[in-house]
Amino acid sequence: MPRRTPALVAGALTLALSLSASAATWQALPDTPPSPADNPQSPAKVALGKALYFDPRFSADGNISCNSRHNVMAGGDDNRPNSIGFHDARGERSAPTVWNAAFHSVQFWDGRAATLEDQAKGPVVNPVEMGMPDLDAAMARLKQIDGYKPMFEAAFPDDPNPITADNAAKAVAAFERTLITPNSPYDRFVEGDFTAMTEQQVRGLVTFAELGCTACHAGPNFNGPKLPTGTGFYQRFPTISGSVYEAKYDLTADTGRHAATGVDADKYLWRVPTLRNVALSAPYFHNGAVPTLDEAVRVMAKTQLGKDLSDAQAADLVAFLNALTGEFPEIAMPRLPGTPGRSVIPAADAHASASPSD
Amino acid sequence: MPRRTPALVAGALTLALSLSASAATWQALPDTPPSPADNPQSPAKVALGKALYFDPRFSADGNISCNSRHNVMAGGDDNRPNSIGFHDARGERSAPTVWNAAFHSVQFWDGRAATLEDQAKGPVVNPVEMGMPDLDAAMARLKQIDGYKPMFEAAFPDDPNPITADNAAKAVAAFERTLITPNSPYDRFVEGDFTAMTEQQVRGLVTFAELGCTACHAGPNFNGPKLPTGTGFYQRFPTISGSVYEAKYDLTADTGRHAATGVDADKYLWRVPTLRNVALSAPYFHNGAVPTLDEAVRVMAKTQLGKDLSDAQAADLVAFLNALTGEFPEIAMPRLPGTPGRSVIPAADAHASASPSD
Repeated sequence: MPRRTPALVAGALTLALSLSASAATWQALPDTPPSPADNPQSPAKVALGKALYFDPRFSADGNISCNSRHNVMAGGDDNRPNSIGFHDARGERSAPTVWNAAFHSVQFWDGRAATLEDQAKGPVVNPVEMGMPDLDAAMARLKQIDGYKPMFEAAFPDDPNPITADNAAKAVAAFERTLITPNSPYDRFVEGDFTAMTEQQVRGLVTFAELGCTACHAGPNFNGPKLPTGTGFYQRFPTISGSVYEAKYDLTADTGRHAATGVDADKYLWRVPTLRNVALSAPYFHNGAVPTLDEAVRVMAKTQLGKDLSDAQAADLVAFLNALTGEFPEIAMPRLPGTPGRSVIPAADAHASASPSD
Repeated sequence: MPRRTPALVAGALTLALSLSASAATWQALPDTPPSPADNPQSPAKVALGKALYFDPRFSADGNISCNSRHNVMAGGDDNRPNSIGFHDARGERSAPTVWNAAFHSVQFWDGRAATLEDQAKGPVVNPVEMGMPDLDAAMARLKQIDGYKPMFEAAFPDDPNPITADNAAKAVAAFERTLITPNSPYDRFVEGDFTAMTEQQVRGLVTFAELGCTACHAGPNFNGPKLPTGTGFYQRFPTISGSVYEAKYDLTADTGRHAATGVDADKYLWRVPTLRNVALSAPYFHNGAVPTLDEAVRVMAKTQLGKDLSDAQAADLVAFLNALTGEFPEIAMPRLPGTPGRSVIPAADAHASASPSD
């Protein structure tokens, strides 16, 4: 059991709060994320979205579901530098966690999707991810699965033609809005339980504020100020170029938001990611090149703040970041509707060398 | 709603029972499968086995879990002709269903594993499946995941050194012994609810007996007589050689049990598989070459019994086989223990061309 010293801890909190720009820097995670007006939550929609999220049949080879790369039984990603896609393809970026993604104002590392609804459609048709030729092909496959029809009807009762890619994306987004991890040691601490974090974690919180990490990693999701959906909070990474880490981890091979927009000013801009459950999503950064959280905080301090951390500072920061690991809801497995007597996955994919249209 | 005619149905049942070799041909699925004396069930063991079953970190690239190929959210297989393994490799055989596998007296298509415990160790180290070099490497990775330690201790409280591959296999087997699907329409029918099957399904049952399918597909799991664990019930497939189906579906490219034993007499011998939930596990047979259940019953009738089915017979048999789809238990997702601040999956696998030891 880590030693906790409530008096010291409460003192440290006061210090930490005084160090921060405003008391609003330290906020617990809300119970409910924002939902768009045109996609209110409902149990039927969440149930449909959960089935779609776990269904591998919307990948070309029937091998990959959303959960394959964003595993909700774990840290919401795949703990790989990059993800394995159709025919063993590898993408250039590391899968971000799905946990608390609903609190991001834009989606993807480069913010190229404004909403979870927009994001959900991307990987299905990405040739190095799920590999479907287009959304129509994915929906054609879905329509062969009779059991989805009543689920779409229940989820979208006012829609005369509910089985659409837009509605599928809405349902997946609704499920993702249930993937929230409250009650981390940090959340309990800022809500007044000063025994919830260890002494080292409190020191880490103070260090986090003192170093200036809160300039970007602020707010309840540690991903910056509250912005309207679709408006991203971006920062340059590396801010300070030329560090040993930049070369070692090839941090500028990918131009980030620039690769999506083509705008020069967007070079090396990245969405500020959440730090919640960051301890569970190694390896780190957009290219997954940094293997440990200890190394990740050193990279951040150097490339963003120009500082070299002592071993003690790094250890304290890592301890604090571990206090951001929340409580994961229990999830019942969906039953995926069957296709009695036949499979919707093309037999032509029986061999690795076959193309999906063989 | 399919039309049911209880009086006709009860008459048909009497007919069916009289056609069978003995009334014991028609049996409901027991609630509990046999367990080996040295591996009694316990909740802690099942919980551990469930986590291991869903954990992709015991595959070389962190991409494949038992559930990836034997999906318990669906029919217990992957609905593919063959499965996708490490670096997009394809095996030669189609994944059999995990549902009710506990009622088989031997495991794998060729019966080369006597028990579920033996079977569980196979795919982990198969180069075209999970691709670990050996079980020691898999256990070395498991031992890096601290959260598994208390789970092994709880599952094997009398074992001073519980974290072993044998115990991991025992736990997975214990979980698999919970994967039972009782209360299919067939089960309810033979237990006296003569409205549980449709008229066509009852006709299919009669056809199934009349044709002689019950010579092999008998007993509560439709996989033959009750035999001691480790003693397989094998049949030749095709029994009658030279059919059009044999060539069309390349049925003799794989020599079956012979490939495992090297014994000439084992050529084209295969374990008689369960027919429970067979409607959900298309495509069919050891090589997954037959796309539909309708075609599968025609292949069986021709190659095993020398008979050409009429369209009506085939439809009735398919209807009956659909009555073998049972009730699937609700399963809560496991939480996979994390490795805070690091990943146990080698970063060297970031590129598809890299070998696992890079």
